[in-house]
Amino acid sequence: DSPRAQPEGLIKLGPKSASQVLVVGSVAYDSIITPDFSAERVLGGAAAYASIASSFFAPTSLVGIIGNDFNPALLNRFRDHHIDISGLEQHPTEKTFFWKGEYTHNLEHRITHITDLNAFAHFRPQISEHIKTVPFVLLSNIAPELQLYTLNQIKGNPFVIADTMNYWIQNTHEQLLELLKRIHVLVINDEEALELSGESTLVHAGDKLCCLGPTHVIIKKGEHGSMLFNQDGVFALPAYPVRNLVDPTGAGDAFAGALIGGLASLRQHSSKAIKLGMAYATAVASITVEAISCDALLPNISSEITARVDVLRQMGHF
Amino acid sequence: DSPRAQPEGLIKLGPKSASQVLVVGSVAYDSIITPDFSAERVLGGAAAYASIASSFFAPTSLVGIIGNDFNPALLNRFRDHHIDISGLEQHPTEKTFFWKGEYTHNLEHRITHITDLNAFAHFRPQISEHIKTVPFVLLSNIAPELQLYTLNQIKGNPFVIADTMNYWIQNTHEQLLELLKRIHVLVINDEEALELSGESTLVHAGDKLCCLGPTHVIIKKGEHGSMLFNQDGVFALPAYPVRNLVDPTGAGDAFAGALIGGLASLRQHSSKAIKLGMAYATAVASITVEAISCDALLPNISSEITARVDVLRQMGHF
Repeated sequence: DSPRAQPEGLIKLGPKSASQVLVVGSVAYDSIITPDFSAERVLGGAAAYASIASSFFAPTSLVGIIGNDFNPALLNRFRDHHIDISGLEQHPTEKTFFWKGEYTHNLEHRITHITDLNAFAHFRPQISEHIKTVPFVLLSNIAPELQLYTLNQIKGNPFVIADTMNYWIQNTHEQLLELLKRIHVLVINDEEALELSGESTLVHAGDKLCCLGPTHVIIKKGEHGSMLFNQDGVFALPAYPVRNLVDPTGAGDAFAGALIGGLASLRQHSSKAIKLGMAYATAVASITVEAISCDALLPNISSEITARVDVLRQMGHF
Repeated sequence: DSPRAQPEGLIKLGPKSASQVLVVGSVAYDSIITPDFSAERVLGGAAAYASIASSFFAPTSLVGIIGNDFNPALLNRFRDHHIDISGLEQHPTEKTFFWKGEYTHNLEHRITHITDLNAFAHFRPQISEHIKTVPFVLLSNIAPELQLYTLNQIKGNPFVIADTMNYWIQNTHEQLLELLKRIHVLVINDEEALELSGESTLVHAGDKLCCLGPTHVIIKKGEHGSMLFNQDGVFALPAYPVRNLVDPTGAGDAFAGALIGGLASLRQHSSKAIKLGMAYATAVASITVEAISCDALLPNISSEITARVDVLRQMGHF
């Protein structure tokens, strides 16, 4: 059954068919240390989290690269969600992108110990013909040059969300500014929003980033929720009150993935649709952090997602 | 005209009669330094901000102490709002409580340079007969012993909101715990909530503080808004998007004052009423920070308060 426009206030959760969403970005092995546990070489990478998050709402294709050491059994994590991984390239000689990080101070601070790009250093996203006409695209956090390279292969006029990070803000500023003129939604965290805008408050940062090209700017604030800036003004959503925070890795990536999937399910990208999508994105992000890696993003969590959206709706109602 | 229960979703703003609200706390001279300006000996003190904020919604009495150096003309700031200052004692020999502080890092960090208690060290709140039956009481940030001393003079069964600060959490912990058992709402900022609860996240802190006595716990998060914890769960309100932040002093005090005044206007203290009151409190706090001292809290801002509540309602709607 193909996705349809949904009744107001509902995003479809269910079986999928031809891809409506393209997610491009990193698939990685993560080693994660927290005060309570450590995990070695678990599934990670922005596009891994994002594609799984998107798949709850709409048929999703993943374009990325893995190395020759990637455990084939891990591919079932994508297949379980009916994600199209025909665009997930395997490098014949390089290893998989590897990230090792540690969370300290009640999981509030993150320290990166190792970033080995490995196969990811050779990543040149190749978009197959069957995906080129997809109506919703998420360019997760990779070099702006590769985000632009991806967009240049797309046909039609897709709705495009992009994420970025401090490394690209500092080192590829011009290409990032070029990218901003070609996307519809910039999803960015609070520190990066201040850095990219040069402003000192989030409200001013949101205003200014909108002037750089995107129709909508979403600032992710972790436990403080998220804000949307566009010509309608400011929209603010609290975080879902997580009482069992295990591993913050990938929360922002899952947020972006659920957002693009939610919009694809709605077949809309109005300001109203984006607000609703942000609620679903917040719900999925809150589930993501309740287990290590993508382990909490199981195929059977649809009813939990919907329940958390209902809680979020009540949380902001007065 | 005396206040009445208001139509749903509206808090009355208008003329006042016999006091419905008692605010007890400090009235001070503040000297404030920011990157953009400095101001010497302007009106300050938690109860000054709170009583003015309350007065927009309900007839309010202020109980506090000033010194022999207090400029009588400043009393007009209270009279302009029809605040009953018959309980504002003047010490014959001591000076007025004096605080000097500096804001740095884009007004995010506050450094206290001077705290001279002066007359305030001799403060023993005396509640006159005509105020003892007031139905809504705000115990703003003073020693828990004085907050209890005030409560012990009150007749009837008022609805009580209390604020506190790190000094009392650290130095008068037992009395603070005794106070918590006798109040209905604790209003506290994020850092203090973590300190008082011993928890590492705000969600756990809010849960735990509710167990210490208050029916409702409100955590103030500055630019990230506020959260309400009670048996219904968690309610979250964003901050109003201030684009002209001048002086953060008193924002939290104005928030608490507008909340108690709003509830008095509604003549209700249900969870629903508190949520609506928090929206008015957020609006008043956002206006407070747009000028130094209490200068932005002018008698004619009622329509601006209502307009900001409307913005807040839209900001959280999806």
